[in-house]
Amino acid sequence: MKLRLYNAKILSMENMQITEGELWTDGDRISYVGSPKQTEESFDREIDIKGNLLMPSFKNCHTHSAMTFLRSYADDLPLQEWLFQKVFPQEAKLNGDRIYKFTRLAILEYLTSGVTSVFDMYFYADDYARACIDSGFRSVMCGGVCGDDKASDLEDRFVKFNKLHPLISYRLGMHSEYLSPLPLIKNVAALAEKYKAPVYMHNSETKREVAECVERYGTTPTEVLYDNGIFEYGGGGFHCNYLSDRDFEIFKEKKLWAVTNPSSNLKLSSGIAPISRMLSENINIAIGTDGAASNNCLDMFREMFLVTALQKYATEDAAACPAEDVLKMAASAGAHAMGLSDLDDLREGKIADIIEIDLNMPNMQPLHNIPKNIVYSGSKSNVKMTICAGRVLYREGEFFVGESAEKIYEDANKAVKELLSE
Amino acid sequence: MKLRLYNAKILSMENMQITEGELWTDGDRISYVGSPKQTEESFDREIDIKGNLLMPSFKNCHTHSAMTFLRSYADDLPLQEWLFQKVFPQEAKLNGDRIYKFTRLAILEYLTSGVTSVFDMYFYADDYARACIDSGFRSVMCGGVCGDDKASDLEDRFVKFNKLHPLISYRLGMHSEYLSPLPLIKNVAALAEKYKAPVYMHNSETKREVAECVERYGTTPTEVLYDNGIFEYGGGGFHCNYLSDRDFEIFKEKKLWAVTNPSSNLKLSSGIAPISRMLSENINIAIGTDGAASNNCLDMFREMFLVTALQKYATEDAAACPAEDVLKMAASAGAHAMGLSDLDDLREGKIADIIEIDLNMPNMQPLHNIPKNIVYSGSKSNVKMTICAGRVLYREGEFFVGESAEKIYEDANKAVKELLSE
Repeated sequence: MKLRLYNAKILSMENMQITEGELWTDGDRISYVGSPKQTEESFDREIDIKGNLLMPSFKNCHTHSAMTFLRSYADDLPLQEWLFQKVFPQEAKLNGDRIYKFTRLAILEYLTSGVTSVFDMYFYADDYARACIDSGFRSVMCGGVCGDDKASDLEDRFVKFNKLHPLISYRLGMHSEYLSPLPLIKNVAALAEKYKAPVYMHNSETKREVAECVERYGTTPTEVLYDNGIFEYGGGGFHCNYLSDRDFEIFKEKKLWAVTNPSSNLKLSSGIAPISRMLSENINIAIGTDGAASNNCLDMFREMFLVTALQKYATEDAAACPAEDVLKMAASAGAHAMGLSDLDDLREGKIADIIEIDLNMPNMQPLHNIPKNIVYSGSKSNVKMTICAGRVLYREGEFFVGESAEKIYEDANKAVKELLSE
Repeated sequence: MKLRLYNAKILSMENMQITEGELWTDGDRISYVGSPKQTEESFDREIDIKGNLLMPSFKNCHTHSAMTFLRSYADDLPLQEWLFQKVFPQEAKLNGDRIYKFTRLAILEYLTSGVTSVFDMYFYADDYARACIDSGFRSVMCGGVCGDDKASDLEDRFVKFNKLHPLISYRLGMHSEYLSPLPLIKNVAALAEKYKAPVYMHNSETKREVAECVERYGTTPTEVLYDNGIFEYGGGGFHCNYLSDRDFEIFKEKKLWAVTNPSSNLKLSSGIAPISRMLSENINIAIGTDGAASNNCLDMFREMFLVTALQKYATEDAAACPAEDVLKMAASAGAHAMGLSDLDDLREGKIADIIEIDLNMPNMQPLHNIPKNIVYSGSKSNVKMTICAGRVLYREGEFFVGESAEKIYEDANKAVKELLSE
């Protein structure tokens, strides 16, 4: 499939400059970005962008996609009650078929928010991957071993899913320090060494998590993981709200990624990540939505606004965390966090994961500064088109994912009803 | 104009229950809400709601509409620099024609967010009112006298705009304690007494504002205003982030409205309002967006999510500030805050300010709990139709406001360019 997107504004993530021109794709790659030019080439589809903006898609760097099934099922409850009485008992009833259906639903939501790649940690890896592949959607899967899980199972999945399909890759990961016994941590570290691979996990999401780790080991989760060799080839943490000075040193030394999830952290009253300090110390930052049971939606615009607005609040400095930095986290840095280095900008040879932002809507007018408009005023209603791997998966409210949205809603609702009635 | 909206879910703000049925309008009023029924009546227009949700429109209880002209013009700056070097010098170049054009733009944005009534404080009242009337849009205008302004001018506007047009009303108001010399405060209090009318103003937005008032008068802004008789017939404050125990007593005694503006307060690093305490002490609460120069968009969904999420964060209680309370603030209480008591619910005889929420979108699925879905997961992309005073002003991305959106964008951009180049 060859696409020609013409009459566009094109945002460069390198310098945040906007040029007018066109963008061509060939298969899953970008074949040309620049001024309009004469060509003998024939395209399968030519789309008039009508002066709207093309930019790289958003990368959602922490989520549990299939948790859509618990959206608005149990809100406004104390954290422990929410988790132990509402979430865990229902999660125990999941199966592969249900994971498939709830993931299909999540993918529709990602597409409306301009997301083409998610870093997902959840259960039933085969069914999850199938939901992505069937939708034409990209995912980096993140290991989530914990408790009695075996590192060898993690290794099997790592090997299997890294050669399964061009849209799928897999990274070593564990749920968290607090759910992983020390032998498991050491075994995952051995895998990191064997494959020279980065490792990811939930890290320092709540004060209590850190305090309990300090009680257990005398040090923070980041230090425990570091001391046991988990970060020898990099990796990162999800949430990262409570990092010590030493943790900051480790993040810098190992070039770890801090993936921030501000709306989930507010809604579950976990805290505000020290993003301004991370920026000033050149820590790598990416953004995720977390799962829809927590926050309750998969909307990168909400997350982007909160990343900066919460820093302005927390540091009492309205100049903190400029919009351009946030946009880079969401559209460019996030790609590197997941190991998708060819998805970080719109340039010849890069992967064609592209979104069209509708500028002809009231919240984008007047056009003083488009990047700031996107971060401060943008909403998913501005996402006019989402292209993943050179294929249009969403345009003007319609989905092209191999199944109708109505059927996906129906399947998800039916599966939820059955699950809850068991 | 008589409308029949059928095949709908209808949300009652009284008990948050949803019934299936239809809603009829006659002129600007609701003439029937209930089960489908046979009728001889003929309608001008019948709309199939296809199982989506009808609910009362949102009321934006604090805004400066025409400030759309500064959206994304000066962000990521320290507060004082933003205000004194960027905002004030440009505001000084406003005139009636520009206010008209920038307000027309704001109204489009309100409609996409399901807002049909705004409580607006800004300049050039005639041109502002004309923009609303020409758009078919409702506004309660709020006096904003300060400095050398005369209370008699406020009185003139109060009298004039309260009989101008059914879509327009006017409430006594002053900018704030900090911009109002004591004689002006006393003169406004005399008007409140004369007309037995409530008075509104910015109040206790920043710590600094309160500290400077205490330095000036020995008491808080709320106390200074109360002691001078401003609140004899009620009224309210915008922002209300820093209220003392005594201020809480005054708000209770005088049944004042606290209008909260969470995204503006984050972005300008002003603080978080004590909404949970207000709820527990039965203080009247409504929600506003503030102007687009501050936050930077006019989106009630963002505000609703933040009202609750920030309380969960600030009180370290994930159960704080339930979604249903927030939805009532936005759609029902807000009407009473502005004196629009006939706009608080969908019932026979009430004013027909109605929105349709599209439930057939991924962020609304599955349908566990629609009110929680709206607050926690909703976005302006879910607003399928906005009806003001019985007239459809927005539907499926199209505006019906007596002028094309393209022309309104063009006019606003041209006016901004001229203004900035002066």
